[in-house]
Amino acid sequence: MGVELHKELLSSIGVDVERHAKMMGMGLAGYQAGFMSQPNRPKAMAYFDWFMSEIQAERIAEINALKAQKKPAVGTFCIFVPEEIVVGAGGACFGLCGGANPPIADAETELPRNICPLIKSAYGFKLQHTCAYTQSADFIYGETTCEAKKKTWELLGKHHPVHVMNIPHMKRERDLKMWQEEIKEFKEHIEEVSERKLSLSEMLDGVKLINAKRDAMKRLDTLRGMHPDIMPISGKDALFISQMSFLDDPKRFTQKVNELCDELGERIKNKVSVFPENTPRIMVLGTPIAPPNWKLHTAVEGSGACIINEEGCIGHRYFKDNVDIEGVQSEDELYARLMQRYSKIDCACFTPNTGRTDKIVQMYKDRRADGVIYYTLSFCHTYNVESHLVTEALAKEGIPCLVIESDYSPEDAGQIKTRVEAFLESITFKQKAEAFANK
Amino acid sequence: MGVELHKELLSSIGVDVERHAKMMGMGLAGYQAGFMSQPNRPKAMAYFDWFMSEIQAERIAEINALKAQKKPAVGTFCIFVPEEIVVGAGGACFGLCGGANPPIADAETELPRNICPLIKSAYGFKLQHTCAYTQSADFIYGETTCEAKKKTWELLGKHHPVHVMNIPHMKRERDLKMWQEEIKEFKEHIEEVSERKLSLSEMLDGVKLINAKRDAMKRLDTLRGMHPDIMPISGKDALFISQMSFLDDPKRFTQKVNELCDELGERIKNKVSVFPENTPRIMVLGTPIAPPNWKLHTAVEGSGACIINEEGCIGHRYFKDNVDIEGVQSEDELYARLMQRYSKIDCACFTPNTGRTDKIVQMYKDRRADGVIYYTLSFCHTYNVESHLVTEALAKEGIPCLVIESDYSPEDAGQIKTRVEAFLESITFKQKAEAFANK
Repeated sequence: MGVELHKELLSSIGVDVERHAKMMGMGLAGYQAGFMSQPNRPKAMAYFDWFMSEIQAERIAEINALKAQKKPAVGTFCIFVPEEIVVGAGGACFGLCGGANPPIADAETELPRNICPLIKSAYGFKLQHTCAYTQSADFIYGETTCEAKKKTWELLGKHHPVHVMNIPHMKRERDLKMWQEEIKEFKEHIEEVSERKLSLSEMLDGVKLINAKRDAMKRLDTLRGMHPDIMPISGKDALFISQMSFLDDPKRFTQKVNELCDELGERIKNKVSVFPENTPRIMVLGTPIAPPNWKLHTAVEGSGACIINEEGCIGHRYFKDNVDIEGVQSEDELYARLMQRYSKIDCACFTPNTGRTDKIVQMYKDRRADGVIYYTLSFCHTYNVESHLVTEALAKEGIPCLVIESDYSPEDAGQIKTRVEAFLESITFKQKAEAFANK
Repeated sequence: MGVELHKELLSSIGVDVERHAKMMGMGLAGYQAGFMSQPNRPKAMAYFDWFMSEIQAERIAEINALKAQKKPAVGTFCIFVPEEIVVGAGGACFGLCGGANPPIADAETELPRNICPLIKSAYGFKLQHTCAYTQSADFIYGETTCEAKKKTWELLGKHHPVHVMNIPHMKRERDLKMWQEEIKEFKEHIEEVSERKLSLSEMLDGVKLINAKRDAMKRLDTLRGMHPDIMPISGKDALFISQMSFLDDPKRFTQKVNELCDELGERIKNKVSVFPENTPRIMVLGTPIAPPNWKLHTAVEGSGACIINEEGCIGHRYFKDNVDIEGVQSEDELYARLMQRYSKIDCACFTPNTGRTDKIVQMYKDRRADGVIYYTLSFCHTYNVESHLVTEALAKEGIPCLVIESDYSPEDAGQIKTRVEAFLESITFKQKAEAFANK
């Protein structure tokens, strides 16, 4: 196992090596049982299986090798942090561990119980020293997209260097202008860590790299969900790839996703689907699904349906927009373009956020999906309140929708499965009734 | 009863008169039982008792008489809305009903269950048409101070005209500059409703009126809590006056509070206390306590302690700062002064918000209090997370502190009383031990 080889490194960055090894063991066992046992997986998944085995080992060694050359290592918690700049500086920008249940009990010694499990988990990982990514980060770049996070950064600052990016509540001209300044400041922080100035051309190279990554992910999204009769990859595998997009080296990741896409293209040509005909096709909306939080996908795909996309931040919201660098001549122009790209993110933290509802309905139609699951992490006020407006719009369009709010505890897995099964039955019944009516 | 006299008016503004009368009946009965039965109340409380009886009757008639003259009527939900401008225009600025439990079930048909009871209650009052203040409002002025509210405005807009003021996450120079623009825009909204321009001198008059109101409330706060041996008024009565400060006509209210203060001054001179000697003196910190949410005060003062102030928005945070208008020559200067005043509000929505912790410790020392209750409404992430930093600072100073999170349901009243009793016992024990040690 990868971790064994890197014990010394892990220890040197302050990881609690013993506890970490135990957690990794559990994570890998969960992955093997839940993912590697799936029938007829694409061959190109072998790379992602390998990456999982090295997720807190070889990949951590790579990041720390960059750090040794004074390249920045930035831990993030949200898709608002412009990774293009970090990558342009030759560094690594990665998501922090925050999808596991065990660290939550530790976090609850300092945080309230009734905030979102993602925040508590990430905080607990820091208290436990069991996330090698967190331990590798020069600093954590927080933001103000949700108040539980915004206030948690104040506490987290006691345990790790933290910077906070101010993401506005609204997207009026004056808000966007301020946003652009935040991006410029972010670049200055990266220069501080790097102990050198960052050139425009380096930043543009960073943008090209991340644009290419997003293109590959969009390609995967299309191959995965846009052919109504063929699902060439499981939703679980596709989700896992989205999850890894926040951790892997972007260049290698892009190449590997494109290789997978080549194979999926062949599968579609040859009508190779990993699900039987007439499998209900489900879209998932809502909050981020961080690894190893595979509860929803396990419940849905274990109940005879297929998940054809995730609308959330670990998914479509992350890769849907590229940075347009056509004709950019100055740093300020680049910051403006970055701001334009980042302000297209339709997070529920904004008011109003009506574009998201329209987008969801369009995505549903484009994918000829059969139903929608609106998934929110417990106590996520913004996505939770916004669900009322989204489900209202879906109801108007006659789109079947199930709302699930859940945390990381295994306790509601059975209940979720029961609710999903009942939802899928209602979809199948609707399909049959429609087919009968059309005869 | 006042409501009977005004049935026609209430009906004309869309109040569900029958349901409203039932709720008012419950509220008045609760007030009579909980407030008017207290022994040795100041005589000047008679005015506030009268106001309670007319709270949704005569006062509503006054507001609607102003509206008939095209004076603005603005409903608010937060202390960030510059009431000085509304009052300057001759109108009324008032808090919306949001402290009662019964409307919550209605609100939960559109809102998640796990958001703060204040928001759900206010939303439910609107759905039920049982708050005559909400029904009187030309518009509701929301803000972005908490995400559950920020997103709820989007839904509330379906039921009532809503404007939203953007309160920033931080207080850097660029945030404050934007804040000033928000205040200017607010004034423009008020001009729209008034169908006329508002002059600088009118606005300055509004500031003077509200400064005087805040001065009276500061005077009450000092008389109430700064004399360690004499508590001339109960915490419950003082809280009630704070609650009414959001509803009453500011000029009359100021006069009546000052009359009460005269009487309290006499009481202090004559050593008249409503509590026996050595009654533990408790400070309450945290989230707003809207009428008729008297649960905490009932538990504490029913257990042999006295509440000597509320640090929250219905309390000290509301009246602690005045607007300095010395030398103001232009509208823009006035907006800057208003911004300066409003940005002193140490709401937990800001990051960082360290000033609040320092203030609390100082308040405790100034008042020679015996303990602190940190009270948060359920699911209020900002105050809830911030409580960790505050209680940590209190612990360093050796200040006894009890944290209570509660909603509006009567179910936890017994549990809260038990916890309060145990807390008070520990304080009394500490006092005795200290007295013994000092002998």
